[in-house]
Amino acid sequence: MSLDVAALRSDTPGVAHRVHLNNAGAGLMPRPVLDAMLGYLTREAEIGGYEAAAEAAGTLDGVYDSIARLLGAERDEIALTENATIAWQLAFYALAFRPGDRILTARAEYAANYVAFLQVARRTGAVIEVIPDDPNGVLDPEALAAMIDERVKLIAITWVPTNGGLRNPAAAVGRIARAHGVTYLLDACQAVGQMPARVDELGCDILSATGRKFLRGPRGTGFLYVRRDLLRDLEPPMIDHFAAPWIAPDRYELRRDARRFETWENNYAARLGLGRAVDYALALGLDAIETRCRALSARLRDGLRGVPSVAVHDLGPDPAAIVTISVGDHDPDAVKADLARSGYNVSVSRPSSTLLDAQARRLPALLRASPHYYNTEDEIDRFVAALATLLSGRD
Amino acid sequence: MSLDVAALRSDTPGVAHRVHLNNAGAGLMPRPVLDAMLGYLTREAEIGGYEAAAEAAGTLDGVYDSIARLLGAERDEIALTENATIAWQLAFYALAFRPGDRILTARAEYAANYVAFLQVARRTGAVIEVIPDDPNGVLDPEALAAMIDERVKLIAITWVPTNGGLRNPAAAVGRIARAHGVTYLLDACQAVGQMPARVDELGCDILSATGRKFLRGPRGTGFLYVRRDLLRDLEPPMIDHFAAPWIAPDRYELRRDARRFETWENNYAARLGLGRAVDYALALGLDAIETRCRALSARLRDGLRGVPSVAVHDLGPDPAAIVTISVGDHDPDAVKADLARSGYNVSVSRPSSTLLDAQARRLPALLRASPHYYNTEDEIDRFVAALATLLSGRD
Repeated sequence: MSLDVAALRSDTPGVAHRVHLNNAGAGLMPRPVLDAMLGYLTREAEIGGYEAAAEAAGTLDGVYDSIARLLGAERDEIALTENATIAWQLAFYALAFRPGDRILTARAEYAANYVAFLQVARRTGAVIEVIPDDPNGVLDPEALAAMIDERVKLIAITWVPTNGGLRNPAAAVGRIARAHGVTYLLDACQAVGQMPARVDELGCDILSATGRKFLRGPRGTGFLYVRRDLLRDLEPPMIDHFAAPWIAPDRYELRRDARRFETWENNYAARLGLGRAVDYALALGLDAIETRCRALSARLRDGLRGVPSVAVHDLGPDPAAIVTISVGDHDPDAVKADLARSGYNVSVSRPSSTLLDAQARRLPALLRASPHYYNTEDEIDRFVAALATLLSGRD
Repeated sequence: MSLDVAALRSDTPGVAHRVHLNNAGAGLMPRPVLDAMLGYLTREAEIGGYEAAAEAAGTLDGVYDSIARLLGAERDEIALTENATIAWQLAFYALAFRPGDRILTARAEYAANYVAFLQVARRTGAVIEVIPDDPNGVLDPEALAAMIDERVKLIAITWVPTNGGLRNPAAAVGRIARAHGVTYLLDACQAVGQMPARVDELGCDILSATGRKFLRGPRGTGFLYVRRDLLRDLEPPMIDHFAAPWIAPDRYELRRDARRFETWENNYAARLGLGRAVDYALALGLDAIETRCRALSARLRDGLRGVPSVAVHDLGPDPAAIVTISVGDHDPDAVKADLARSGYNVSVSRPSSTLLDAQARRLPALLRASPHYYNTEDEIDRFVAALATLLSGRD
């Protein structure tokens, strides 16, 4: 079923103000997400923060069910966190490494994750190795399979990197991880909300994601999936009495569910907004969303390829809805600012965000345009024309 | 200067709906805090999450200045976190312990902190020891001084425990810690916002606090102070590229300020609300706030002492604005629910929240009433009368 774009736009306050092509930064929240938060915060002010949470307990609890549905997981495998990085960290730092243990990652791994690898490698003596790409710049599953030995303790990759449009073969990696019994941690931050992301199909043991990007949820929301069997073996790197109730003077007992990775206090307004965003995406259908994201980003790439001094830097035969370009000798930050003044929201992806990939491909700072299903073909075309005019005027 | 309670109440939407005596849970947000968040979230929906943050960058940056003013600290000593527990954890788990190192804490230490002590003790071989109380049930600084030796690596106490009304002598502890060069971690979660909390007077090296309680800020906000000299030696237990930019393929560099304890993504609406709440408290003056909190909680204790079957369990000669009572054979949860139906917000403090203290004093679950400066004397008196009526009716 195709999406009713006009209806979806009337549900999105932001489209009246901007041509928003920064969904890989943060998507425009639809009205139900915004209203859920405004209503809840107002209620907190009216009756008290704890009292409002008690009143909304059922809805708040349902957020776990919504995320479980989104991921094809069980609700006891889900934890909510302040952001995707914290979700990823809490699971990653719970893993035990010994000297010589191998952590396999992808070339375009996100900086947030890579510095954590470096810290843990220094602490434990584990080593970090990068899985080779195929000739298209996509992670090569055959190369991964050839690397596996008994010292490989973790495969940790980003599904859709922050730069480069790439869509890594997350499910193929999952099949290899499963076949060899290697723990597989998938950073799905830029994937959830723009494509189906079911953990059974992906074969991952751990998945981290954010609410604010293609899911169109609030900022300051993230979530973690940990496969139930693995969960029981993972003691969180830090605990409080919510994660691990204090049951005797010298003893705590970890919760049995994934909420052992949470702490007691949370931003409930943001959680409610996240739940609404997930429900919103599920109601539209992730297949329909993916189809439209694919079409709009292809149109955008095609258009940009015709703009003088623009080079598209996206990788792979089937890129995601993240379009990255260099703009010749122009300063991408200045171009971004000029575009903003004309009502176009884009972002700049810097080499330090994906340092290995940027160095390997000698990438400068890139302008990044990330459409979503609520964008129109006309917006895409107008953006391309505006950029062309702007760049020619700056020459 | 005394507070204009009528004006402050007209600035507090919740007082029209409830008699809110659950400020130790979450205070009622004043209108400027609520409005800051509603306005910011609406703006995010209108122009985009990143774009709204850029537009409000100056105000968001000012939150660090506000908190630094509140604590008498420098802005580079402040980190913002999702809650006080995470703030506390990030600093505590950054400390290095060896077998036999002693962690000294207080009897009424909060469960969140104590389970973390237990986890770290198990990992490192450090030992946890409880500082004796004086005859009034207050942490005894002389007893603390007598415990100090070269194996004491940390003094970590809660200033105002979640139960028991107690106000521990945080500054006296600080003088001892300073004199012996022992790191001093102060959990100020229930103190900030109801009394002055200046790190120079307290003598603490690390302080953690929340926005939602007596500061009347939003839920899901916390902050951390780390003294600048100590900061440089503390590598956070987990890092991302905001805390530690990725500067070469095999190297990261920790930020020099306390924001090395943060991650890149945050809930900016909540941060803005927190900043407004801190500014609001500073404008009123913490001395004036403390004076009124002291008077209202004394009136409440006096009133409750006259109610049959009620016993006040607060400790110390100068208790804080947390009043805890047992209610005879009545079920405190049922009493709380009955009070809620009559418009009175209180909470229940369970033995597992402060297990050592609860066991030592054989405390049952306690009803907790925590007034704030915006409560009126009449509300206090009506609450006491309502409780008396309710308990006599339940007999």
